[in-house]
Amino acid sequence: MEKRVKRLNNRIMITSAAAVGGKKEGEGPLGVNFDYIDRSDRFGKETWEQSEAESQFLALNFTLNKKKLQAQDLGVLLAGDLINQCTSSAYGLCDYDTPFLGIYGACSTSAEGLLIASILLDSGHFEKAAAVSSSHFCSAERQFRSPVEYGGQRAPTAQWTVTGAGAFLLEKNTNEQGALIAEFLPGKTRNGGIDDPANMGAAMAPAALDTLLTYFRESKTKPSDFDLILTGDLGYEGSEILKDLSNKEGYCLDGLHNDCGLMIYDRKKQDVHAGGSGCGCAATVLASTILPKLLCGKYRNVLFMATGALMSADSLKQGLTIPAIAHLIHLKGGAAK
Amino acid sequence: MEKRVKRLNNRIMITSAAAVGGKKEGEGPLGVNFDYIDRSDRFGKETWEQSEAESQFLALNFTLNKKKLQAQDLGVLLAGDLINQCTSSAYGLCDYDTPFLGIYGACSTSAEGLLIASILLDSGHFEKAAAVSSSHFCSAERQFRSPVEYGGQRAPTAQWTVTGAGAFLLEKNTNEQGALIAEFLPGKTRNGGIDDPANMGAAMAPAALDTLLTYFRESKTKPSDFDLILTGDLGYEGSEILKDLSNKEGYCLDGLHNDCGLMIYDRKKQDVHAGGSGCGCAATVLASTILPKLLCGKYRNVLFMATGALMSADSLKQGLTIPAIAHLIHLKGGAAK
Repeated sequence: MEKRVKRLNNRIMITSAAAVGGKKEGEGPLGVNFDYIDRSDRFGKETWEQSEAESQFLALNFTLNKKKLQAQDLGVLLAGDLINQCTSSAYGLCDYDTPFLGIYGACSTSAEGLLIASILLDSGHFEKAAAVSSSHFCSAERQFRSPVEYGGQRAPTAQWTVTGAGAFLLEKNTNEQGALIAEFLPGKTRNGGIDDPANMGAAMAPAALDTLLTYFRESKTKPSDFDLILTGDLGYEGSEILKDLSNKEGYCLDGLHNDCGLMIYDRKKQDVHAGGSGCGCAATVLASTILPKLLCGKYRNVLFMATGALMSADSLKQGLTIPAIAHLIHLKGGAAK
Repeated sequence: MEKRVKRLNNRIMITSAAAVGGKKEGEGPLGVNFDYIDRSDRFGKETWEQSEAESQFLALNFTLNKKKLQAQDLGVLLAGDLINQCTSSAYGLCDYDTPFLGIYGACSTSAEGLLIASILLDSGHFEKAAAVSSSHFCSAERQFRSPVEYGGQRAPTAQWTVTGAGAFLLEKNTNEQGALIAEFLPGKTRNGGIDDPANMGAAMAPAALDTLLTYFRESKTKPSDFDLILTGDLGYEGSEILKDLSNKEGYCLDGLHNDCGLMIYDRKKQDVHAGGSGCGCAATVLASTILPKLLCGKYRNVLFMATGALMSADSLKQGLTIPAIAHLIHLKGGAAK
C-alpha cells in the first residue's frame, strides 16, 4: 500500500488569496478580513446561481490583482462548487483565458483544489496555479432544500451555507512571501450511516477522523505539534463528534482545534444553528483569516482539513446514507522553512 | 505565458482498462469489445442513479482484476459523472478503500481524469492511479430533459447519452504492457454562443478546435503525424463543424478523425440521431476499442480529446449559452518508445 502522507519536493507556496462574501459573512466576526462584502448577496447579477458565479470571478480577480498578474500568467486553474454540474465555476471563471480543470469534493473542494494544484506545480509541469471554490446560501437553499421565500424551518443541527468564494494563487520555488504547502493527504470516502441532510457535521466527522488519525500516525506527529488544526465545516455537531472520537483514539484536540463553520459566524448573535458550511466556508476562512496569520508568523504549523458530504438531494430521497471525505494540507508559516 | 503542451517526464502507461455498457451499447458496433453488457441497463440496482453508480464499481473492478490488483494497491482514484453532485462516482466507488478525488468536466471527464492522474504519477507522489467516468441514458434523461416514460421528441442534432462506464489503471515506470501517455494539454473554456441543449456538438466544437489547433501549433505536428485523432463526443454535427473549422485553419482531418459518439452506435440502424454522448461515451470507446489497438501496435500515435459542455439545465433556463472544454492526451502504442 502506498504511503498516504506526501511531502512536496519543491517549495510550493500560497502567495496570494482573496475572500468575498455576502451580508451575513460581513456581519460575522471575520467579516472585516474579507476583501469584499456585497450586502445585497447578489454581486451585481440577477439570479442566485449567477451571483455565486460572479463571486468566484471576483475572488480570483482580487487574488491575481494583489500580485499584478493576469489570467494568462496562470498555467492552470482548478475550481468547484455545489451547484448542479458545477456551473458557478464554469460560468464564473470562463472569462479567464486559462486551462481549466473542474473538481468536485462538496465542501472539501477548497482543500482538494489546493492539494491537486500543489501536485501539479510539484510535478514540474506548471509554474503558477489557482484554486477557487464558492457557495451561496440562496442558490444552495433552493437547490438542496427549498427556495428561501418558502421560509422553511431549520433543524438545530443544520448548518448555514456560506455566501462567498475563496481563491488561492500557488507558486513554485518563488521568493515571494506566502504560506508553504509542506505536506498533503488525500482523503478516503467514509460513510457513517447518517441519512439526515440537516446533520452534515455528523455525516462528515468520520471522514475527518479517518484523515486526521492517518496523518498523525503516518507522520508520527501529535496535535500539539500544530498551532491550529482547522477543519472545513463540521460545525458545532461535527466538531464535537470529531473531538470526542479523536480523544478516544488518544489524540486530544482541545485548545488546538477550530472549525471554519464555527469561526465565520457568531452563533450567539447570528441565527446559523450549528454554524457555517458550503464550499465557500473553508475557502473564505482560510483566505481571509488563517493565511495572514501564517504570513506574519503568528502561526507556524497549521493542518487545514476541509470536509465534504458527497450526497445529493436525490440520493437521500432514494434512501441512501451520506458518504463523506476530508482532504488534509499541512501549511507552514513564518520563515516557512 | 506557460507552454500548454506538456510532455511527461516518466513513463506513465495505461496498463489496464475496462468498459461496461447497457443494451444499446451492446447492440452497437463496439458492443463485442465491452467487458460486460447489462441488457437490462440496471446493473442489479433499483434506481437509474444507483445503476450508473454500480457501472462505475464494475468498470473499476474489471480493470483491477485484469492485473490482480486490489483497491489498496492504488495510490489515488479520480472519478466524475454528469449526475448532480457527481453521486454516481461517490456512491459507486465508495467501497474502494482508496484516496478519492472527485472531478467534473462533463463529457470531457475521462480525458480530465487521465490527464490529472498522469500528472499525479509524474509528480513522484503516486505509483498507481485509476480514473473512472460514467453516464446513463435514463439517469441523464430524467435529470436534464424528461423521464424516459414521458416519451419526449428528440431533435435531429440531439445526441444519445451512453449507458456505461470506463475505468483506467495508470502505472509509472512499469514493465507492464500498455499505452504510453506521452503528452497532455489541458483545455480552456470556450463559449461559441450556442444555447440549444439539443445541439451539444455545435457547443463543444469551438473548444475542441481551440485545443487541437493549440496542440498542432505548439508541438509543430500535423494531423497526418497521427494514426487517429479521436474526439470525445462531438457526434455528427460537432464533428462536421470541427472538421470544417480545422480545415479552414489549414489542418485537414479527413480520414484521420473519428468521434467516440459516432463509433459507439450504428447511426443507420440505431435511433441515436447525431450519435452518442455522456461521460461514459469517450471512456468506454477508449477502454474497449482504442486501447487494444494501441497495445497490439495497430495504432502508434493517437490524439484522444474528450469534450465537455459545462452548462446545467438551470443555466440554460436562465438564458445563458453553453461553455465547453476539451482536454487532450497524446497516446503512444506498440513499442511505446
